[in-house]
Amino acid sequence: MNAKQHIKSVTIIGAGNVAHNFGLAFRQAGYLITEIYSRTRNSAMLLSQTLNCDFTTNLAELSDETDIFIIAVNDDVIEDVIAQIPHKNKPIIHTSGSAPIEVFNGKGFKRYGIFYPVQSFSKHDTESLTPIPICVEANNVETENLFLSFASSVSSKVYSLDSKKRKTLHVAAVFANNFSNHMFHIADSILGEDNISFEIIRPLIEKTADKIKMDKPVNAQTGPAVRRDNKVIQSHLDYLEKEPSYRDIYNLITQDILKSQKEKN
Amino acid sequence: MNAKQHIKSVTIIGAGNVAHNFGLAFRQAGYLITEIYSRTRNSAMLLSQTLNCDFTTNLAELSDETDIFIIAVNDDVIEDVIAQIPHKNKPIIHTSGSAPIEVFNGKGFKRYGIFYPVQSFSKHDTESLTPIPICVEANNVETENLFLSFASSVSSKVYSLDSKKRKTLHVAAVFANNFSNHMFHIADSILGEDNISFEIIRPLIEKTADKIKMDKPVNAQTGPAVRRDNKVIQSHLDYLEKEPSYRDIYNLITQDILKSQKEKN
Repeated sequence: MNAKQHIKSVTIIGAGNVAHNFGLAFRQAGYLITEIYSRTRNSAMLLSQTLNCDFTTNLAELSDETDIFIIAVNDDVIEDVIAQIPHKNKPIIHTSGSAPIEVFNGKGFKRYGIFYPVQSFSKHDTESLTPIPICVEANNVETENLFLSFASSVSSKVYSLDSKKRKTLHVAAVFANNFSNHMFHIADSILGEDNISFEIIRPLIEKTADKIKMDKPVNAQTGPAVRRDNKVIQSHLDYLEKEPSYRDIYNLITQDILKSQKEKN
Repeated sequence: MNAKQHIKSVTIIGAGNVAHNFGLAFRQAGYLITEIYSRTRNSAMLLSQTLNCDFTTNLAELSDETDIFIIAVNDDVIEDVIAQIPHKNKPIIHTSGSAPIEVFNGKGFKRYGIFYPVQSFSKHDTESLTPIPICVEANNVETENLFLSFASSVSSKVYSLDSKKRKTLHVAAVFANNFSNHMFHIADSILGEDNISFEIIRPLIEKTADKIKMDKPVNAQTGPAVRRDNKVIQSHLDYLEKEPSYRDIYNLITQDILKSQKEKN
């Protein structure tokens, strides 16, 4: 089945990072963007200008001249938004890593599901969806086929993943993306205290991401914990005395590296 | 001053990741590698074959036909190794991020210091030192100039950094490299429990490192903690009940992200 035979136009509910990237990617792939919704007038207007389409701040007034609704709003308002969308005969998807498929229960839609892009988008640096994995789930096989085909029209890495596995993936993504980025922030903050430029560790950060292209992270690990260099570990803990939260993080992660190396052997 | 006028040959003490990368890089830059030392015969022999030079397992027998000794051994044996090296009239450097310059005190050398490469090397994937920052410290200005010039002959990013700042940098590097890599490992481990391929989050990891090329990590942060999405955070903590150490790490880092975002605003 070719999704483009069924889906020619899309409405995007939301005007944040995901909405921006999806809007541009779907337009690029030849879809008509019918309309943008955001509760914030300015955000809706800005994205609609970028995409050259209509916008609304009122879910009840959404046009029915669309082939699918794509929800890209914060997790805590997804259910509320779904409930307010009219045109229950249209397919509808949300894009959250966390919200289970059950958020559509009792809202009146017949074809619904999830389109979870495994990426950390930014508004200001939109990108092609082609290399980005998209995880698809739907309420029945026919709808899943429609959504898989729709996803394949913008991404070359489409996976079928149920809500349970999507949650696993989302937890993993928080570690891989948000928490690793926080490690970069702590490094930046520690260097800043001593007026050392963050530039000095950029090549190291690039290498860290590069190394695991060829190996599992547990095998690529280096540093005092892997070397069981207790003298260095203790001197780092002493150094971090002045910043107790960094000290606690250093200690906990070091213990866990020691544990994971033991399990590896 | 051109180091090559003063330093034409180098002896490398050690046969690990740093020794491999330094050996190849210095040979590439036109230096003669006099000799490799390792206490393990097989390691010494292997690296000496790669570099086509002599090797020894006995520090007392080191040749004096060299212009500098480069120590690339584990931190906990540096002092011991320095004490055993004869030829006290030769310049000598160690390559550790942690060991202070005082490890040379009372060992009889006149020109000594540090060459700390801010990189996580591997033996099997040796690389050019050109883009890698090298931090230099020495016991006096003249020696520092010699070492800075020597460093500049292999790297385009040479910094003069005292032991106090080098320690700051090393602590920061542990967060930026070892701890971020451990976050990748935890992600891999969580995915593995549910038979999901690590491949699915590789583009995300590449993006994480990529994003901070243009922005400070604290500004590039995304995810449930930054969004203050307590429902998602709680559901992730519940999910991690079965893996208490991951749960503790999730909790501690999330709290620290919240704190750092507050400080940013």
